[in-house]
This record gives sequence, C-alpha cells and structure tokens, in this order.
Amino acid sequence: MASLTGHQFIGFSTSAKGKDTFKAINPANSENLPTDFFEATEEEIQQATAFAKKAYSSFKQIDNEQKALFLETIANELLALGDALIERCMEETALPRPRLEGERGRTMNQLKLFASVVREGSWVDARIDRADPDRVPLPKPDVRQMQRPLGPVAVFGASNFPLAFSVAGGDTASAFAAGCPVIVKGHPLHPGTSELVAQAILKAAKACNLPEGVFSLVQGKTIAVGMALVNDPNIKAVGFTGSYRGGKALFDAANQRPEPIPVYAEMGSTNPVFMLPGALASKAEALAKGLAGSFTLGVGQFCTNPGLVVLPSSEHTDQFKKTLAACNETSAEGIMLSQGIKSAFNLGVEQLKSSPGVTELSHSTGVAEGNKAVNQIFEAHITTVLQNKALQEEVFGPATLLVNASAKEEILQFARGLEGHLTATIHGTEEDLREYAELVSILEEKVGRIVFNGFPTGVEVCHSMVHGGPFPATTAPQTTSVGTAAIKRFVRPVCYQDFPQEALPDALKDSNPLNIWRLVDGTLNRNSL
Amino acid sequence: MASLTGHQFIGFSTSAKGKDTFKAINPANSENLPTDFFEATEEEIQQATAFAKKAYSSFKQIDNEQKALFLETIANELLALGDALIERCMEETALPRPRLEGERGRTMNQLKLFASVVREGSWVDARIDRADPDRVPLPKPDVRQMQRPLGPVAVFGASNFPLAFSVAGGDTASAFAAGCPVIVKGHPLHPGTSELVAQAILKAAKACNLPEGVFSLVQGKTIAVGMALVNDPNIKAVGFTGSYRGGKALFDAANQRPEPIPVYAEMGSTNPVFMLPGALASKAEALAKGLAGSFTLGVGQFCTNPGLVVLPSSEHTDQFKKTLAACNETSAEGIMLSQGIKSAFNLGVEQLKSSPGVTELSHSTGVAEGNKAVNQIFEAHITTVLQNKALQEEVFGPATLLVNASAKEEILQFARGLEGHLTATIHGTEEDLREYAELVSILEEKVGRIVFNGFPTGVEVCHSMVHGGPFPATTAPQTTSVGTAAIKRFVRPVCYQDFPQEALPDALKDSNPLNIWRLVDGTLNRNSL
Repeated sequence: MASLTGHQFIGFSTSAKGKDTFKAINPANSENLPTDFFEATEEEIQQATAFAKKAYSSFKQIDNEQKALFLETIANELLALGDALIERCMEETALPRPRLEGERGRTMNQLKLFASVVREGSWVDARIDRADPDRVPLPKPDVRQMQRPLGPVAVFGASNFPLAFSVAGGDTASAFAAGCPVIVKGHPLHPGTSELVAQAILKAAKACNLPEGVFSLVQGKTIAVGMALVNDPNIKAVGFTGSYRGGKALFDAANQRPEPIPVYAEMGSTNPVFMLPGALASKAEALAKGLAGSFTLGVGQFCTNPGLVVLPSSEHTDQFKKTLAACNETSAEGIMLSQGIKSAFNLGVEQLKSSPGVTELSHSTGVAEGNKAVNQIFEAHITTVLQNKALQEEVFGPATLLVNASAKEEILQFARGLEGHLTATIHGTEEDLREYAELVSILEEKVGRIVFNGFPTGVEVCHSMVHGGPFPATTAPQTTSVGTAAIKRFVRPVCYQDFPQEALPDALKDSNPLNIWRLVDGTLNRNSL
Repeated sequence: MASLTGHQFIGFSTSAKGKDTFKAINPANSENLPTDFFEATEEEIQQATAFAKKAYSSFKQIDNEQKALFLETIANELLALGDALIERCMEETALPRPRLEGERGRTMNQLKLFASVVREGSWVDARIDRADPDRVPLPKPDVRQMQRPLGPVAVFGASNFPLAFSVAGGDTASAFAAGCPVIVKGHPLHPGTSELVAQAILKAAKACNLPEGVFSLVQGKTIAVGMALVNDPNIKAVGFTGSYRGGKALFDAANQRPEPIPVYAEMGSTNPVFMLPGALASKAEALAKGLAGSFTLGVGQFCTNPGLVVLPSSEHTDQFKKTLAACNETSAEGIMLSQGIKSAFNLGVEQLKSSPGVTELSHSTGVAEGNKAVNQIFEAHITTVLQNKALQEEVFGPATLLVNASAKEEILQFARGLEGHLTATIHGTEEDLREYAELVSILEEKVGRIVFNGFPTGVEVCHSMVHGGPFPATTAPQTTSVGTAAIKRFVRPVCYQDFPQEALPDALKDSNPLNIWRLVDGTLNRNSL
C-alpha cells in the first residue's frame, strides 16, 4: 500500500505549496495520528480547477462503456486498498470495523450501480421531435434534446460517512456518471482516509486512460479552502453533506458569484417519527426497542437520525416509554467523530435540559469519558414543542425527544408546522393509515422520504431512493443525493435543431446506436427511426 | 364578453383595495387606454397566496383526466374570448393582428400539449424498487418514488409575448400541469389582456370544479407587488421571463428568504450566430435576407433575437453585407412595446455607435417617429468584441452586430469566451461542421439550443425544446421554460418506503392503474407487478 503524503492531489501530481499543516486526531484517545496534511493554497485550487476544466472537454465525450469501467475500477481499487483503508479510517473516526467494512461495500455498490446506469444509457432523457416540412403556416424543425454534463464539480466530503459520502462517495460517483470532473475537498476529520481513496480513484483514472484533471483532492481545515473552491469560476456545481451552517454558507457564496451555480447541500434534519395508536397497541415493546437502536445507530451521527417522536397518549404509551427507557439505560455509549462534535452534542443536550417543559426520560448509565456520548431521551408536551421551534432542531448525536400528544388534530397541526426534513416515519396499522390519511398528505409536502413501519436510519441505495427534502433539510429540494436519480444534479438539457446525423451525439442519432429509451414524437421507445 | 374591471382576481372574487391605479398605454399613439388598474396591496397578495396554499392540498391530488380537461378548457375559453382579446392586445402592444392570432394559437397549443402529457401520465418518473426480505446482511425495503408538485407558484408575465408567455402562457401551463396553483403578476404593459385571460382561466377552473385559489391574478406597476409575492412564505417557486435586472432581483430575493425557493428566470441573451465559410460561399444572399428578417422579427423583441453574427472574411463576405444592408435600408420600422423599451433601445444603439471600433453598416431609412424603432446593423472586428464584453450584451430591439473574423482559431476563441446564451446558431455545410466540430463542442457548454442552418427566433413548442441556458441567460440552466420538460421545474421527488398498496399514489401501485411507464427494479416498463 502507498504511504500517506499529506499532499494535495492536483491532476496526476501531488503538491504541497502551503505553509500550514494539520493532523488527524484519533477520537478514541484524542491523540494526533501521524502525517502532516497541508492546507491547499489558492494557487493549488486554481491549478486543480484549471485541470478539471481542461479534462471536462474530453471527459464529457467519453463513451458509456469507458465511463462505466472507470466507476467499476474505482470500486475495485477501493477494495484493493485492503485493510489499510479500514484501519486508517477506524483510527480517524472511531467507527467500528464492521460498520466501516459495510460502508466500504456500500460505497463500492454505489459506484457499480452508477456504472450500470451509465452503461444502460437511457438516463440522458433523449427526446426527438421530427421535422414536418409541410406544416402550415410554418414548417416544423427537427429538434432533439438530451442531458449533458455541467462541468467541474466540487464535492465536500462528509464527516459521518467517511467512505460512502466522502471522496469516492455518492456525490463523486454521480458527478462522474454524469460526465463531470470532480474536485473533492476532503473532510479534515479523516484526511488520511481521503488521501487513500484519492489514490484509488487516480489509479482507476490512469488505468482507464482518462485525462489528467478528471479528479483532484484538496485538503484543508479552514473555511478558506472550501470558499476558494466554490468561488472558482471553473466550478459549475457543488455537492455537500454536513451541517446547516456549512451548507448554507456555501449556498450563499455560490449564489453571490458573478455566475451563480447550484449547491446540492444535504444539511441533515430531525426526521420526525409518528407512532400511531394501532401500532402502539399491537407492538409497543418492539417499537421502543427499534427506536432505541435507531437513534443511537452510528452514535446518533446519521443524517436520518430520528430526533422527534410523536407519541399519542394511550394505555400502551407507558409501556413504550418504560421499555425505551430501560433499553437506553443499559445501552453502550459510543465514541463521537471528534471533540468538536461531542461538545456540540453536549451543548445541544444542555439546551434541551434547560428548556421549560422538557424533562429527561432516560440516559445511558455507562462511563462517558473522552469523546463518548451519553444516549439521551427527553420528552415534552406537543404544545411545548409547537411553541418552541428550537426544540425541533437537530441535535447531532444520540438524542431524541418524545413529543407527548393527546388528540389527532393536535398531531396533524404539529405535522403542518414542520419545516423541511429528509424523512418522516409513520408507525401504524393499515387502519391507522386510513384514519391518518391526511398525515401522509401533509408529510408529502415536508419531506423527501416517508417510511412506514420502519426506521429512517437505513438509506437504501437504489433507483427509487430520495435522500433530500425541503429546506432546511437541503438547499435543493428537487434533487436526491442518494440513489441513481442523484445523477440529474450534474447535468442540463441541450437541444440540437436541424442537425445533420453525423454531427449529433450518438444518443440522438436516427439509428439509436446506444439502444436507449427515447421519447420520439411524444412516444417512449427504443426504435431506430 | 365581460368588460374590464381593473381589479385583482383573488380566488373566485375580485378585489380593489389599493389606492394607486395605473392605465395601459397604446404604444402606437402614446395615449392612455380606458380602465384604471389597481395596484395590488400586500393584504390582497397574502389573500391570494393563502387561497393558493389551501387549493394546493386538493389540486395536487386531482386525477390526470380532470387536470388535462382543465388545461384544455383554458385553451377553449381563450378562444371564446374572441376578437375582443386580440383587439385589446393589439391596443396594448402594437403587435399586429396576425402575430397575435398566431400567438393565441401557440398559447392554446401549449396548453393542449401539456394536457396530453398529463393525460399520458408517465412524466411523474415513477420508480419502484421491490423489497427483498431475504437479502443479507440486511433485508431490502420496498421503495417507490415519484414527482410531486412543489406548491403555489408565482408567475411573472412577460412584455414581449402577451399571450404565450403571460397569464396563460408556458409557465402557467406547466405549473398547472405539475399540479401547482398559480398566482400571476400581470405585466403592466398589457393589464387588460391579462385580465381577460384571467377571466378565461377562472371560467375554466369553475367549469372543472377546481378549488378556489387554484389561480389568482394580481396587477401592479411597482416593484413592490412582485417582491411581496416572491417573499410570501406560501409561494414555493417563481417563473419569470424578462430583463436581466428584473430576473436577477427576484433570484436574489428568493435566495435570501428564510426558506429559499427556486426562481426560473429567463432573462434573454444575444444569441450568437456563426456564418461558416462554406455556407457563405453557397448562399450568402439567402443568409443575408434570412438574418435581416430574423433580427427585426417582432420589432427585435424576441428573447432569441440574433444580436451577434460572427462573419469570417472571404470573397463572399462583401456580397453578404451588401445584401444585408440593402434589405435593412428598405425594411419597415416597427412600433416597440412601450416608450421605456424604445428609450432603452435607443440608449443601447447610442452606446454601440460611440464604442471604439464599432461602425454602422446600415440603418432603415423610414420615418421612425413615436415608438417606432430604426432597424440597426453595426460591425466590429472580432478582437474589438473580445476585448469589450459590453458589446456582447443584449440590446433589446431590432439591432445586430456583425463580428468580422479572419481565422478559425479566432472564432473558436470568441466562442470560448461567450457567456451563457439561450441559443447559438451555425450556418454551414456539412463539411463546415466537420471542420468546426470543436465549435459545436464549445457551444454545448454555452447555450441551451444550437440551431443549424436556421434562425433562432422561432421556438418550437415540443417535447425536445430547450429554451434556457447557462447564466446570465437564465437563473436555472438545468431547466427549460418552453416545451414539455418545463413541467419538471415545478415538482420534486418524494419516496414511499414499505407503504401498503392502498396508501400509495396510483402511479406507484402494483397494478399500475394509470398504465404509465415506470422504472421497476431498474427496468423501464408498463407492467403491473
């Protein structure tokens, strides 16, 4: 395995022109890990984007098979990094081995799924309207449309998924699939992991004969590196997963550029859960156990962590709470990703504790030293939570707030007042669902995904997944950052009027050489014309 | 025909609570037209958006057939307004009868085309990934995705297409098709036309038993009315066609809201035309005549007006220029839409005249009194235009600038330096196109539509049209405002995980009751499951 350099990866070279360096810290013992990582300079960032711009003009033209092979080769090179990747990642994140091995598998599967989409080819939404020279009063031209890549994309790695939403994660995979070069700003909590993954991507790029600049990695702990990237005129779109503060700052900067660009920022949410009466009556214990597992999964550091649980009062509510409290008291405290994240979590918990009307139901009782977090459950009456919107905000970590309700109308009113979230969950019987049909209708306007009788913390990577939702869950509610529809973020339609066959892209040629689905004169088919 | 009230149309009632009024002016004689139009008040705007929010919860659920009928009924009611609509529109815009009758036909066809898309139903991009309870290590959930309407949409009518891009124009038709209620801010240059069309829409809404608030019209001459609309929390998206200044102001306001919302602003462009050597050699005269007709069409008040014409020097260039100048000298001066637009045009022309290196090739020689505009052709060397970016900006009206070039590389460099435009046009032989393959590749990154051997001023309404392009042509380069793909602007994906059949929307039910195309486990088909 290649050792760590701590340098930037600009095109096919490394670079370390900066003066400032930083180290990764092991959250398990707060000790520095070896290797000095250099902060990228403005000059290095400009080099990376200039390379990316140049690479774009050829990468956007490569054929589907070559692009698919690139994605698959990245997946293989990730695996080829072997245990060194898992070990470094464990050191940088304190996430356990099975979780990281699973996450590596998911990352590889994402890349392979996008490869299959690219190879199949119909994702370009080809549309053809044929000419009618005899139409009166004016002849009808031949018009053909397809999606084309936007240009170089800046991707900001997330802290909480150091593989699946970082250097070779979903944003990078979907941007490559679209035909866009990528520059990743590595997350400063796992720079070594980032560098290893960057090496894998670059190895794949070379093996696939792709142009220099199709991928670069810049590292940095300061806001300056990210802002320089977003403000660079060669960058045409931004993918981000992280905090509201970080995502909103990038969104604002991107909108204030001379040429505004789209920012796809997934900024997390509180993911409300609705426990309906029939479900409580039939399986209060199972629901309590499920919730206890879900809100502490990954030390509560999931974007889809259930942080608000609406609980109608019934004869089964007490049993639910008792089971939940008991599970939680004996639950294991996990190590959070960093001291900063742990401090922010503690602050959030203190704010909940000191909020009028909020009481603690339970906390885990193990030793929570260092960056270990106590698993916390609070409760409050629904009117308290309705009146104090701050209680609906995300506390990033293993905490959840039970919202005690009595009447159905109260619950619907609560739902109507929700801001945008990534997910909402309904636990209920089919009868509950009929009784609460309006709840589904309300939640459709509030979230990207509605889960029935499950927990939101698993995000299936597939064609149908929506990992997104109205602001403030994301800055781009019309998109998803997980699943194959994520590719749509990095393209725009271009149409060709009265072009001769040989000058048209293959996807739009009469003969349909790619054998893709196309909307021809309003009818979907795979015919040649 | 109903007479004009000058009132707002809020839900199913009219309202005139404002103190201020304005009158429409006939651009042909600068005289006021009858009827005082009231400026909408903030209270009226809030009423309209509250109605729209309420209407949304039922309108978003109506079935495809009812929605299609609504769109078709609007088309029929437009026609039923009869000659009164055409006459009032002629008085307010000075556009000739055949143009407005044609535009009414186009407006009706747009509505009917969206009706056909809605009735067919596949536009919702339904995606289904079926469960696999036996998958290891984790069972796979059932996940289903489709597009859902965003909510109430604010539409700003354009001055230059008083029917096709105004009250019942493309933005309104596509928002309705998506399932979004619409509030139109009528353009102050044609308030009577706006009111008549609003009456037609409301008649259709009532005939189709749609909820009050599915449509409202507010009028106003001031910026305040538009800003109040965009800042209203019930508004979830904005459609706009007009000036850069107006569109950018709405975009900035929308991004600074507590909940930012998308603004689809089409802000016009200069639509560069490239005359390649082979085309000049084979048909210089025809090209000159075509260009003379295109840049003066609709008094040059088309968003796709060709305002920059790159002209390589050859033995045929002189002939092209001579023919163009001769056509232009005898061309008729048209009346512009308003005194303000005429003044802005004159200012733009004066700035061109006084720019170093710019010379006049020709101007029309008729009498240009009142709001009539002189048809103007200028020329400059390509290096002048490269160095002075102001020369590439739109002069709204019948003016065009010939860009004299000598070498191919110079032309490619010019293309690389272009900002975003709605269209680019290439006139050439197939051999030219091979020789200039790189030009096509560059223009793909700069515009929404590339026209070969035609003129950009006709915008075909069809499935494949892209009327959009990179900033500053639009604020939303990933969308089109003409053609059926315009519907995508007003929806976002929602996914349903592990939902029972009866709680799923029809588009996602196993039985596929709508018989639409769906991506099932990655395969496109119309099967029931």
